[in-house]
Amino acid sequence: MRIALDAMGSDRAPAVEVEGAVGALLDRSDDVRVVLVGDTERIEAELARFPDAPRDRLEIAHASEVIEMGESPATAIRRKRDSSIVVGVRMLQAGQVDAFISAGSTGAVMAASLVILRAIPGVDRPPVGARIPTATGKCLALDVGANVDCKAHQLVQFAQLGSVYVSDMWGIPNPRVGLLNIGTEPEKGNEVVLEAHHLLARLPNLNFIGNVEGREIVSGKCDVLVADGFVGNVMLKFYESVAGLIGGMLRRELAETGAQLDLDRLFRSLDYAGIGGAPLLGVNGVVIIGHGGSPPLAIRNAIDVAAQSVQRQMVPHMKALMALNADAPSPQAS
Amino acid sequence: MRIALDAMGSDRAPAVEVEGAVGALLDRSDDVRVVLVGDTERIEAELARFPDAPRDRLEIAHASEVIEMGESPATAIRRKRDSSIVVGVRMLQAGQVDAFISAGSTGAVMAASLVILRAIPGVDRPPVGARIPTATGKCLALDVGANVDCKAHQLVQFAQLGSVYVSDMWGIPNPRVGLLNIGTEPEKGNEVVLEAHHLLARLPNLNFIGNVEGREIVSGKCDVLVADGFVGNVMLKFYESVAGLIGGMLRRELAETGAQLDLDRLFRSLDYAGIGGAPLLGVNGVVIIGHGGSPPLAIRNAIDVAAQSVQRQMVPHMKALMALNADAPSPQAS
Repeated sequence: MRIALDAMGSDRAPAVEVEGAVGALLDRSDDVRVVLVGDTERIEAELARFPDAPRDRLEIAHASEVIEMGESPATAIRRKRDSSIVVGVRMLQAGQVDAFISAGSTGAVMAASLVILRAIPGVDRPPVGARIPTATGKCLALDVGANVDCKAHQLVQFAQLGSVYVSDMWGIPNPRVGLLNIGTEPEKGNEVVLEAHHLLARLPNLNFIGNVEGREIVSGKCDVLVADGFVGNVMLKFYESVAGLIGGMLRRELAETGAQLDLDRLFRSLDYAGIGGAPLLGVNGVVIIGHGGSPPLAIRNAIDVAAQSVQRQMVPHMKALMALNADAPSPQAS
Repeated sequence: MRIALDAMGSDRAPAVEVEGAVGALLDRSDDVRVVLVGDTERIEAELARFPDAPRDRLEIAHASEVIEMGESPATAIRRKRDSSIVVGVRMLQAGQVDAFISAGSTGAVMAASLVILRAIPGVDRPPVGARIPTATGKCLALDVGANVDCKAHQLVQFAQLGSVYVSDMWGIPNPRVGLLNIGTEPEKGNEVVLEAHHLLARLPNLNFIGNVEGREIVSGKCDVLVADGFVGNVMLKFYESVAGLIGGMLRRELAETGAQLDLDRLFRSLDYAGIGGAPLLGVNGVVIIGHGGSPPLAIRNAIDVAAQSVQRQMVPHMKALMALNADAPSPQAS
């Protein structure tokens, strides 16, 4: 298996990417190979820092351009055809690699994947999923990639894709799917969520448990949490920062009182960066999007997630489910 | 000054309300009187527990009915005309009291206030504000009361009302107003937020600082945070629960390691319940909504907030600002 990794994506690229790739490969003894996509010279310079790097399982695919965070995704992927993102996604589309990982511009990765790989039939807007820590484990929230102004049937597609991901990747059969809302009663919510609730409740092959309130997210009530990309994105970023705020308060408190507590251990389970990457779901290929501030550990985890997604045949399973639903009375009509 | 307090609102009513009212009055030596609205017999039974209660500053207004949490607000306020909420809001409308506080159904308090008190001219949908702790202090988020599917000009009204509240109540002149969004650039967001950004940037008498991302909420970037009631409500409930999740993790960690840390002190600043009540803004009267799980301290704080809102002339200031804007080119046209 070959996994393309955008070597130019993160805030500290390519150092973080190279260190993460080397670490992941040294950890693995299987047939996974990593293709570092980006500026060959700079990647080689970083690789020189790791004499023990398994060069037989590391390749470099040159890409001369980099899409910056501030650029318009649609324009950038058209103009920068030799950017690491466009080159990597093209390799995936051509079957030269089995997965693509980038900690670069989320918008550009989403745009390139949609234009080059295309969405699975039955998927309008591929969502980005994020793993959210809960009191009992974790839950996949989607969309957090900012597909804003979603229609009800698009939220239904998010539910289906998330359900396949959690079942394949986390080994949870028949995952509990919740709809993020302001109340638990079916008649609560805005127009889109009200209609989505109605559609989800009638969908076969989905374990819809109903509405989930903001306060219930971390309680572990559901395995898949469905939301419009606006709400999902605001919530995810808020979550990261609240953990940071409380961590800062704790550190000050500990310093004042002299109490001993392993905060790093404590916050590891809340650590978004450590978790490693958010899957872009519903496109014809395995695509993992990392945080710009990813440490090497996050890149390593993203490689593991990508490899597992390929091994578990996540994309074929999603295609099969979406095809199945295309035969059922279409919710797109709504 | 007379403040009506719904004695039947909270989950542990009327015990919590009576204890909170007695505590608030024992704390104050001014002319504030509290009118406990609800079942006279049950209120008297609770009052009997406090021999030191200042009965000369405590009154009871009998109300034979209670609106339950599960009831449809619109139906409930029509059918239960002798409920503590309807009786209390009517007293405010009639000028018999200067403010009304309830820890009962948020929807019913909002509906009763809108129908009986009516909105200030220029306000379509009165928002509920909530104080959110930040790294540098606090910020008022609104709407958190679940006015869903808001239009852009309604978000602008939230900004104006929130600005008056923060200026009057927290003594912050020219408060910084932020718009909750998925990115800081003006071209980011869903349709409503894009239009709201455009309107806010052109509004006189408002210190609009632009978009605020989810991760920036707790950093203290703004004093007033504007959001649709759907997003605001989800976010607020999520915030409460994240603090709870981390608190639980910490308690387990402390128990395991035997480390000493005053968690109560630490979490006090994050404690929504302790803070005491969210103002319903933009109606013709001071209305404070408490959490159903309010402890007596929250009721006490709510009484202080209500008294201060009256003293600072918050409602007249809001009327003046909205009238001023009615003379300017109307954003309602959008």
